[in-house]
Amino acid sequence: MISSKMIKLAQNNSVIRAMFEEGNRLAAEFGRENVFDFSLGNPNFPPPEAVKRAVIDVLTDTPPTEIHGYMSNAGFPEVRGAIASSLNAKHGTAFTAGNIIMAVGAAGALNVALKTLLNPDDEVIALAPYFVEYGNYVGNYDGKLVVVPANPPSFQPSADALAAAITPKTKAVIINTPNNPTGVIYSEASLKALAAALEAKQKEYGTSIYLISDEPYRELAYDGAVVPWVSNFYKNTLVCYSWSKSLSLPGERIGYIAVPGEIDEFELIFEAASIATRVLGFVNAPSLLQLAVARCLEEKTDLEGYDANRRALYDGLTARGFECVFPQGAFYMWVKAPDGDDKAFAAAAKKYNILFVPGTSFACPGYVRIAYCVAKATIENSMDGFAKLAKEYGL
Amino acid sequence: MISSKMIKLAQNNSVIRAMFEEGNRLAAEFGRENVFDFSLGNPNFPPPEAVKRAVIDVLTDTPPTEIHGYMSNAGFPEVRGAIASSLNAKHGTAFTAGNIIMAVGAAGALNVALKTLLNPDDEVIALAPYFVEYGNYVGNYDGKLVVVPANPPSFQPSADALAAAITPKTKAVIINTPNNPTGVIYSEASLKALAAALEAKQKEYGTSIYLISDEPYRELAYDGAVVPWVSNFYKNTLVCYSWSKSLSLPGERIGYIAVPGEIDEFELIFEAASIATRVLGFVNAPSLLQLAVARCLEEKTDLEGYDANRRALYDGLTARGFECVFPQGAFYMWVKAPDGDDKAFAAAAKKYNILFVPGTSFACPGYVRIAYCVAKATIENSMDGFAKLAKEYGL
Repeated sequence: MISSKMIKLAQNNSVIRAMFEEGNRLAAEFGRENVFDFSLGNPNFPPPEAVKRAVIDVLTDTPPTEIHGYMSNAGFPEVRGAIASSLNAKHGTAFTAGNIIMAVGAAGALNVALKTLLNPDDEVIALAPYFVEYGNYVGNYDGKLVVVPANPPSFQPSADALAAAITPKTKAVIINTPNNPTGVIYSEASLKALAAALEAKQKEYGTSIYLISDEPYRELAYDGAVVPWVSNFYKNTLVCYSWSKSLSLPGERIGYIAVPGEIDEFELIFEAASIATRVLGFVNAPSLLQLAVARCLEEKTDLEGYDANRRALYDGLTARGFECVFPQGAFYMWVKAPDGDDKAFAAAAKKYNILFVPGTSFACPGYVRIAYCVAKATIENSMDGFAKLAKEYGL
Repeated sequence: MISSKMIKLAQNNSVIRAMFEEGNRLAAEFGRENVFDFSLGNPNFPPPEAVKRAVIDVLTDTPPTEIHGYMSNAGFPEVRGAIASSLNAKHGTAFTAGNIIMAVGAAGALNVALKTLLNPDDEVIALAPYFVEYGNYVGNYDGKLVVVPANPPSFQPSADALAAAITPKTKAVIINTPNNPTGVIYSEASLKALAAALEAKQKEYGTSIYLISDEPYRELAYDGAVVPWVSNFYKNTLVCYSWSKSLSLPGERIGYIAVPGEIDEFELIFEAASIATRVLGFVNAPSLLQLAVARCLEEKTDLEGYDANRRALYDGLTARGFECVFPQGAFYMWVKAPDGDDKAFAAAAKKYNILFVPGTSFACPGYVRIAYCVAKATIENSMDGFAKLAKEYGL
């Protein structure tokens, strides 16, 4: 028999991905414009025009064997150097190329980080609600995912709840800010409290606890909000970044891991993570895209567009009686299921060709996630359906 | 402490990769033109011009959100369909898009295949000499690599030796033809014998034994040699392909897994492999390159160039008294260490700034691998050094 882990996964295939396929099926049946698919974090806004120009420029001005060839598993040194400089200018860090490992998107980065850190039965803490795949990533390395319950209504992380979940077997804590699915940005105060809790526990148990900061939404912050740079508060931090959202390149699988020099076991971790990149079969992040993003480090996605979507959706839903967390970042609306049953809420919405993901998939029942990285018309045209849905729930 | 597996890997970091870094160091010290680096399978020939044109065409004629967005984890259906048609025309198979999963290079494909198939302690057989990373890939899923000894002087696989290594715990056999490092193409007779041995053992043990055919060198076959299509001989075959060598795109990480419909547990394996692509953090093969290679399926690399290298190196080395396997495919020369000590041979060569990899790294001591995917001048200019090396060995 094939892998029993994979059989189990095949049986419980990701609800989000299943909805993606379902959305395609409905679109084929009813026409794309009549399906309101809010299920996947697939940016509807195109990458900045500069990305296309950068790809073509690289193809034109760089020798093809260099563009498409192997490089060190950590990536092109000059690309890593450019990223380090850009981060230093923005966050006051002191990175060099020697702190950056190019990764196959944030999912690749997280797998490399976990492969590097985990021994079997090590515990990894995630704070609900969290991206559903974390559990699978941790399971890849025989780690044990420990979930800290959600902290409504603010959905800021609770340092006390985190501290209570830490044991001598805790190897890592994964955080995600701006957060998928809540849209909350972890505040400086929250991060300081988390850091203090982690440091106290490290001291108590004589262990190193690594904070893995999953940051694909770093640049998606509204109303001028600042997303604090986590390693400035806690030295044992690994930052996993992706351009999937900030440059609308999710299909390209391009990101990095930043490993601060102050981290415990820096040399060993950096070397092991480079090797993990190879051994897991990534080998290196896609080379043409490495060179292209290095030329687009100061480019921005259409933040105003997302902001307009955010306001249209928030206003539309609250006007119809739904209770939403007002998102500070990312492109997700976290909405309360009117009667507390998120799965029934998602099922009811499907009748109106509206697709979104039950919070159960984020270890946080009672809420649903509505991804608003869609065309504005999708939001506007969905409002009839949402009105009917509200009526159904007596709102 | 971080992952003990990774600490061990960091301590025994790949000899091949270490040589790659060493080559760069020597090049910095002596000048690139004075270092004869035959260590890595990094094609020196550029991709066909059509690849650049295809990338630019895709960027020009396809909506950017489609080019760079998420798609099904298995890849773009139209790309997979085009690959299926191309394979059908060449090999008489009956594939559709539903048999093809796009992969992050052959290394990604192999990891997905092994993740899909293996339960802890399952055995995976490799035939020496084999690509050194197979052991790490199998170890990722807690499998046990079982090595069938090499079969000199032909280096064709021995069906008897394979049969002797199969146990009830054998889940898979990895083969690689044209072979890295020997340059040998497994003959139709060899493959038929392998298939018969596998079928007999499946029957004896009541198990399914999957043949994983690692085929990045499929199109690199000289003198009109035909590389047999493995699944035509044995139905439980998974083909792992990459364009790294055939289109000189190793840095881009683009390939596929072909899963024949006749394979045992087809639906489950296809679904599980698609999910494994996601769960391992690949998510999908890089999207722009998926679309680009689909337009280059009938493009060819500079086979004449490799052939000229092959002949120059073979003639040069044999004229100087070295004993080589005449390669039928791939771009590696498999050379006997004159006194049987491959590590000492590689160390001696380094004195003349010649870098190649000891066969010990391929579980086959007594030989070395010389990668001739280099500029012809590198081969020509290395001959002085090889002459001195031959003299040192009294050839």
